[in-house]
Amino acid sequence: MRLASFTDYGLRMLMRLAGSPGQALSTAALAEEFGLSRHHLAKIMQRLVQGGIVTTRRGGGGGAMLARAPDQIRLGGVVRLLEEGHALVECFVPAGGNCAITGQCRLKGRLRAAEAAFLAELDRTTLADVAVGAPPCRSPEPAEV
Amino acid sequence: MRLASFTDYGLRMLMRLAGSPGQALSTAALAEEFGLSRHHLAKIMQRLVQGGIVTTRRGGGGGAMLARAPDQIRLGGVVRLLEEGHALVECFVPAGGNCAITGQCRLKGRLRAAEAAFLAELDRTTLADVAVGAPPCRSPEPAEV
Repeated sequence: MRLASFTDYGLRMLMRLAGSPGQALSTAALAEEFGLSRHHLAKIMQRLVQGGIVTTRRGGGGGAMLARAPDQIRLGGVVRLLEEGHALVECFVPAGGNCAITGQCRLKGRLRAAEAAFLAELDRTTLADVAVGAPPCRSPEPAEV
Repeated sequence: MRLASFTDYGLRMLMRLAGSPGQALSTAALAEEFGLSRHHLAKIMQRLVQGGIVTTRRGGGGGAMLARAPDQIRLGGVVRLLEEGHALVECFVPAGGNCAITGQCRLKGRLRAAEAAFLAELDRTTLADVAVGAPPCRSPEPAEV
């Protein structure tokens, strides 16, 4: 099973925000740090803002910060938000897909239970547990003597 | 998070084999029943044979059958086999991907624990619990009187 890159990258951004408490980080800076598309990260950040996990500050020194303390944000909640629209199997999509077994299927409930176990396990961890600090500054080249 | 269609379709085939114990079903018949590609199902069946979950019988009335009793085949084991090569996140691929956080990442272990919880939950169910019988035969059109 696979998490969407949307979720993978979203988690990376949140881990960095958790590692720089009180500091607003721009999507451009995060994109450069991670070597990822700024456009893609901006879309993920928008979802995180809509979901109330991140808040933004405008102007000079503006950017994104966590909306709550990192120890108040559980990973299961983050993954639930970012994975919205990525159904585990075809029949979990609201339209329901086109499975010939639908109606007499006893698998669906078991898959839902497994998905719930996955998220419950992640909910045991908060962003504070997985925070990542700023990368070390690259030292300037030593001047030739 | 998403299971590969390989896994989704593989589970459907196994559920039907579990519902017809002692009877060999051809991939062609399963493909027709489910409205799925025969070629795709044949590739999945090959993996199930290699994994020791399914065995095949040649000749007239030949086809695939479960290699063990359905109550001896756990869903977690099936999903582990069919999801091989579908890493949860980029860094779970043996080559390791290209994540800037690698090295100081504390998320990876938490994701592995969540994946294990997902599979452990599925291991509580066997194919016997989710067996699906043959679809009802379509009655012939009544003759006009």
